[in-house]
Amino acid sequence: MEQQGLRELYVDNLKDMYSAEKQILRALPKMIEGAANEDLANALEEHRAITEQQVTRLETIFGKLGSSARGKKCKGMEGLLEEGAELLEQEDESDVRDAGIIVAAQKVEHYEIAAYGSLRTFAELLGDDRAVQLLEESLEEEKDADEKLTALAQSCINLEAANQQEEPQRKQAGRR
Amino acid sequence: MEQQGLRELYVDNLKDMYSAEKQILRALPKMIEGAANEDLANALEEHRAITEQQVTRLETIFGKLGSSARGKKCKGMEGLLEEGAELLEQEDESDVRDAGIIVAAQKVEHYEIAAYGSLRTFAELLGDDRAVQLLEESLEEEKDADEKLTALAQSCINLEAANQQEEPQRKQAGRR
Repeated sequence: MEQQGLRELYVDNLKDMYSAEKQILRALPKMIEGAANEDLANALEEHRAITEQQVTRLETIFGKLGSSARGKKCKGMEGLLEEGAELLEQEDESDVRDAGIIVAAQKVEHYEIAAYGSLRTFAELLGDDRAVQLLEESLEEEKDADEKLTALAQSCINLEAANQQEEPQRKQAGRR
Repeated sequence: MEQQGLRELYVDNLKDMYSAEKQILRALPKMIEGAANEDLANALEEHRAITEQQVTRLETIFGKLGSSARGKKCKGMEGLLEEGAELLEQEDESDVRDAGIIVAAQKVEHYEIAAYGSLRTFAELLGDDRAVQLLEESLEEEKDADEKLTALAQSCINLEAANQQEEPQRKQAGRR
């Protein structure tokens, strides 16, 4: 593979990610507003601050590359967020909506895990150590966010749902 | 959370996944055709067979639920596959196209990892042990597929690219 070709693919994917992060920043307020569970709302709020840092990291990488961050619309993220927005409109029951928000958010996290993983690999190949470090930081943050959402799904939503089932003796926990 | 609400969210997400898998089956032939690297083409071909099994598993779950698998279009997967299709049209250089195909395929895998993970959690809560088992099988297959793609990116594409860089002494390996 020509280094030039890899570099173009790298920049193209960086632009895709920049567009994805910007779209996430626009979508998060509605998700936060729609979340009934306080822990979920806090986790999403925290992720908004993290996303802003991730945007700044990407801008640092673009600055070093001497390339504009703009010029691409991430269609993958557009579809994922559309799916999440539809759910927010449809679900009236707050607990079910929370569960749906977690599903939507985990799909977004996993998109980012795949994307940052590829970007880090490309940066390694191109010998850009500073970019590797920055992309690695964002990748780890996304993995952490995914794990937090899994824990939230289990602690807040699952137990509440289980209370309605065959185990009425199970203790109710983690509700606000 | 009412069990009925959770059940509706579960069926809704199952339908979303069914649509996603069907879309993947329609998109895979073009990705396989576009792959220059034989190992990549074989991995995608193998994944097509696995995807067909996953569709059958979902149909088994729907059969047991007495619900139709149809009626939803997965917009998230639609966006991801659109992104991949655009790349196939744009990239003329075969090695770069292969790297791009791997990125696109890993985004698809990660969507499925997030989706099957949530579905399994919902099935657990609803006490549907057979569905848990089926969804777990698909989830593990997706994780395996993602790992294989990461290995492919490293063995086939990265070393080829590295050969063009500052380390000409590095051994070329894993090329077809």
